[in-house]
Amino acid sequence: MENEINNRDFSKIPKVVIKRLFKYHSALEKLIIDGISNVSSSELSDDVNVKASQLRKDLAYCGEFGTRGKGYEVSYLHDKLSEILGLQMEWNYILAGLGRLGRALVNYKGLVSRGFKIKAIFDISAEKIGQPYHDIMVYHIDEMQSVIQDMDIRIGLITVPADAAQSVCDKMVEAKISAILNFAPVLLKTKDKVFIERVDISREMVTLSHYLSHHECQEKN
Amino acid sequence: MENEINNRDFSKIPKVVIKRLFKYHSALEKLIIDGISNVSSSELSDDVNVKASQLRKDLAYCGEFGTRGKGYEVSYLHDKLSEILGLQMEWNYILAGLGRLGRALVNYKGLVSRGFKIKAIFDISAEKIGQPYHDIMVYHIDEMQSVIQDMDIRIGLITVPADAAQSVCDKMVEAKISAILNFAPVLLKTKDKVFIERVDISREMVTLSHYLSHHECQEKN
Repeated sequence: MENEINNRDFSKIPKVVIKRLFKYHSALEKLIIDGISNVSSSELSDDVNVKASQLRKDLAYCGEFGTRGKGYEVSYLHDKLSEILGLQMEWNYILAGLGRLGRALVNYKGLVSRGFKIKAIFDISAEKIGQPYHDIMVYHIDEMQSVIQDMDIRIGLITVPADAAQSVCDKMVEAKISAILNFAPVLLKTKDKVFIERVDISREMVTLSHYLSHHECQEKN
Repeated sequence: MENEINNRDFSKIPKVVIKRLFKYHSALEKLIIDGISNVSSSELSDDVNVKASQLRKDLAYCGEFGTRGKGYEVSYLHDKLSEILGLQMEWNYILAGLGRLGRALVNYKGLVSRGFKIKAIFDISAEKIGQPYHDIMVYHIDEMQSVIQDMDIRIGLITVPADAAQSVCDKMVEAKISAILNFAPVLLKTKDKVFIERVDISREMVTLSHYLSHHECQEKN
């Protein structure tokens, strides 16, 4: 056993591995659609652009998969990854901040197809409140706790401006949201045990500027 | 020396470390605004929500910083990180796909403030082509190579639908774009040496569904 992690204790899998497991999961979904039932680690590694050795190491976190020389059984591996990633069920979420980014995210196909369903939108603009946007009702942000109290909602997306993000985060925590995806360019803090993931487009751009600054010059030498 | 990496060879710094260095850079920027000239690793680690031991290890990639007991000199560390991250200069970029997400990204403050400047937009819709969107001219996607040939543009953002993304990527590579930020839910491939980073909102959501599926149950035990 290469990994010291117990097969069942999926909570100990590092976040960077979780993101790669999702990559494998997406590739396996495509193989299922194409009617392919077996895949070797080298084929799968080509599909996802991850080294085969890394892929095997990542999959070992999930238990013992694959038979040497026979590859992986696609549907079994897909289902196991669904279980690890929490994708075997549907998740309801709410969104706070119906600006340009918020509107781009409502009914974003990549979320709908993964089983993420938006149930309510919150904003502070009188023009937006009280009418549906793409069939989803828009409420005042102060109504959050009462609106979602009878809905099974654990996930909140924050797309409000930076200076409003912490107060929206506090309202979400009050309303018993336990996981937040934050698009505002600010670090959110909570006292309660809440999982907060930040999507920072500038941070992704900086991997590009870093690359352009240091890699190309070297390649030219 | 804890890291085997040469101080000057910033190209060898892992991407996950680059993203944390950007976090430190943002926190240092705030300290500069607040007029703070020295910071200890434990204070900085509190600001960014990263363990002090991890922070010290990350900063060691950049060379020898800080004096034991005296902390880091804020502006020196900030400038060094700017150099590593390629943020000491401005970067021009183009965007292909003026849909909802594309519109949300044009003039996104987080990019402008980091020195990323959008220079041209490309689309295929006759209604959008030939007129500016927020002062940025929109061109037909087939004009890319001729439009940007005299501009100093190295970065391209792809916000077109999945089925158009590979052909747009090919056009960007032809037009000598060397780094691409891809928002389309598809894995892009190129023969040339092009750096491609993917922003996948579903992947970030999956870190939430994974957490909700496996961590909370354990915490309740």
